[in-house]
Amino acid sequence: MMNCEPLDLLVTGGTLLTMNGTMDLLENPVIGIREGRIVFVKSGTAEMPEARERLDAKGCTILPGLVNTHTHAAMVCFRGLADDLPLMEWLERHIWPAEAKYVNREMVYAGTSLAIAEMILSGTTTFCDSYFYSGSAARAAVDAGMRGVIAQGFIDFPTPDSPDPSRQIEIAEKFVGTWRDRSPLVTPSLFCHTPYTCSTGTLTTIKETARRIGVPFQTHLSETREEVHIIRERFGKSPVQYLDSIGVLDEKTIAVHCNWIEEDELDLMATRGVKVSHNPESNLKLASGMAPVPKMLRRGIAVGLGTDGCASNNDLDLFGEIGTAAKIHKLTEMDPTAMDAATVLRMATIEGAKVLGLEREIGSVEPGKWADLILIDMEKPHFTPLYNLYSHLVYAAQGSDVTTAIVGGKVVMKDRRLLTIDLPAVMEEVRRIGRTIQTDRTVKP
Amino acid sequence: MMNCEPLDLLVTGGTLLTMNGTMDLLENPVIGIREGRIVFVKSGTAEMPEARERLDAKGCTILPGLVNTHTHAAMVCFRGLADDLPLMEWLERHIWPAEAKYVNREMVYAGTSLAIAEMILSGTTTFCDSYFYSGSAARAAVDAGMRGVIAQGFIDFPTPDSPDPSRQIEIAEKFVGTWRDRSPLVTPSLFCHTPYTCSTGTLTTIKETARRIGVPFQTHLSETREEVHIIRERFGKSPVQYLDSIGVLDEKTIAVHCNWIEEDELDLMATRGVKVSHNPESNLKLASGMAPVPKMLRRGIAVGLGTDGCASNNDLDLFGEIGTAAKIHKLTEMDPTAMDAATVLRMATIEGAKVLGLEREIGSVEPGKWADLILIDMEKPHFTPLYNLYSHLVYAAQGSDVTTAIVGGKVVMKDRRLLTIDLPAVMEEVRRIGRTIQTDRTVKP
Repeated sequence: MMNCEPLDLLVTGGTLLTMNGTMDLLENPVIGIREGRIVFVKSGTAEMPEARERLDAKGCTILPGLVNTHTHAAMVCFRGLADDLPLMEWLERHIWPAEAKYVNREMVYAGTSLAIAEMILSGTTTFCDSYFYSGSAARAAVDAGMRGVIAQGFIDFPTPDSPDPSRQIEIAEKFVGTWRDRSPLVTPSLFCHTPYTCSTGTLTTIKETARRIGVPFQTHLSETREEVHIIRERFGKSPVQYLDSIGVLDEKTIAVHCNWIEEDELDLMATRGVKVSHNPESNLKLASGMAPVPKMLRRGIAVGLGTDGCASNNDLDLFGEIGTAAKIHKLTEMDPTAMDAATVLRMATIEGAKVLGLEREIGSVEPGKWADLILIDMEKPHFTPLYNLYSHLVYAAQGSDVTTAIVGGKVVMKDRRLLTIDLPAVMEEVRRIGRTIQTDRTVKP
Repeated sequence: MMNCEPLDLLVTGGTLLTMNGTMDLLENPVIGIREGRIVFVKSGTAEMPEARERLDAKGCTILPGLVNTHTHAAMVCFRGLADDLPLMEWLERHIWPAEAKYVNREMVYAGTSLAIAEMILSGTTTFCDSYFYSGSAARAAVDAGMRGVIAQGFIDFPTPDSPDPSRQIEIAEKFVGTWRDRSPLVTPSLFCHTPYTCSTGTLTTIKETARRIGVPFQTHLSETREEVHIIRERFGKSPVQYLDSIGVLDEKTIAVHCNWIEEDELDLMATRGVKVSHNPESNLKLASGMAPVPKMLRRGIAVGLGTDGCASNNDLDLFGEIGTAAKIHKLTEMDPTAMDAATVLRMATIEGAKVLGLEREIGSVEPGKWADLILIDMEKPHFTPLYNLYSHLVYAAQGSDVTTAIVGGKVVMKDRRLLTIDLPAVMEEVRRIGRTIQTDRTVKP
């Protein structure tokens, strides 16, 4: 039955990269949006349907909003606190003590709000977050009109929000129960820190809970060589073999990093349908290693891009990851054809959605999906001349080229002004948190 | 004798990273500028000297303008024309034929003008260029008020601007003679394409000419493994040994790329005082290799950063190179301490100036030097909070954060508006060139 109500929003003009299965490109598209979802996508038409709001995309490329498959958003509060250090010194002497001391409900709300502002300003409309006080992160997402897969985290030692690791199932069920139907913007999830910081019991308990209540399960996996050695010593198996042996791997498992993965592990991941979040800038900055992404893609493994947290990146601009991902594997494979621009842009959109289990909801511009769109201003010297849109978006674009962002049909940024976040207030609150942290330390400029 | 004339320009407020020998940082600096040069740099003072123009840097970081040590600026006309291809297919089937057909005086002027616009917009105030019709490139620099080391190029086959390779000395002397005292903005230079495309005769002739008339000599060197094999087969020596044996290496030689350099070659380069231009994004995108920069720095070799041409990058934003350089060597050395943020920012400023032989003129904010400055707006979410300026500029900044650029005391960009370039006209001209190129081809989408 046709809905004769006027549309809520009509986006017209420019060039649309749908990122659908056939990678359709439409010049002068007309995109109709009602109740948050895309109703139709057509080529330019003389007769324009009625709509409460219209958005002119002339001179712009329209893309599905980018999907950041791995962040610890509130860690923006630690951005630049400690860099260029050996990994264990960085973690044990800077990040973990700072987290133990300064992470609380308010810090997570403020930090996540700032992170969301930064992500919207650089074209991300969905983020997958794992940190402490996940309820605060989910609230920040809903308040900002941002889409998020928000995970409650688990680790086998007391954390700021969970002093008692024995109450895992209760905490997991409570978090998912609270958030599963509260907002179409939030998908709750469960996250185990790593196979070397979570016991077999924790991993299986959390995965079983996630499976029973039908939410994505996430874990950092094989980020460093050292942790592969630890798992091999403890269990006599590679990390992927170990996780498979305890029944943790399936198509709703998201493995983050996967830098040190052998061929047989890749085969196993492909067989089980495991999804991968690839975080190249963080992996470079921490000298962790580099995921064999071309090998994953050849096996049909879904790979999305992530920024990781701001202590190890140090920004949340997914265009940075896009450019880095497109280039770094050419070097590691010594092959300039290793991953082309369109493939990488798929990783940042529809493949990222697949990683999060949201490929029927977001990740491409198609009727029925949520209207999560971004507009990129192509009237820039670094986009001139134009031979190939994919090339420009991957090798020349930066987050600041995004002018407009729409999440679930709601315009959250227009002409680079954020419409749902009081940015000066959020920045001031995070600065206040930063000053508190800095007065306890002697940090040179 | 004190000059009592009023200053031409006074820059006040914000935070100054001088990038001088002791890396001084000044809060609320006062920078006096007269006749294009920095007259004094002081900490905030109650009594402000008289000046014809004042610039308030409140909320900004002031840096010396960035130095891009290697570009082929006019290649912006080929940006995105051909990507993700094997190197020889890319060169032989796309870039060289396009150059043979479309490069002319007007194309170089228009392309270089667009490139300069893009560089100023992303904080570069000096670029080192090697391409065809170098006179057109030099004119574009002077017209835009941009500083450039502009090289006449040589290669042993007919080129668009030099059908007759036998007239090398004459062409070299004429170019340098025309440009050596014409503008303080332009430093002429001579460039040999590579040791495998230039004969021993060409290399020694051009180097001797450069030495005699006192200008920098440049060459691509050991960009790919294949060219190292070629040189070894032809001369029984490594490329650096070969160039040394023919007398081409000295402190006014700039070697570009240097991805495949052995330890003994590094020692020889250090002994001869050879300078290096490091172009990490181009090297990644073409899968050429990666220069052993930390090893160069340990030997005291001056290393600057370059974007390379836009066919292999595909933008001219030196902040991209800064971020990539800071991260990539952490992976290649598997050591997160391999190169810290301040070191990389020095490569983009004072070390870059050293590479070009201009370290007494530019590269730091010190009295007597040209007033080449940029202002970076720190009031951004991705710079919040602030613990360490170097960290933010290296790991979080992008070109679009630069709001103001000054070259030789002249404001060439203010609040992101270019003041010396008619940007819409230049973009339209480059688009016209692009359309001509595209109508001859079938490029998707």
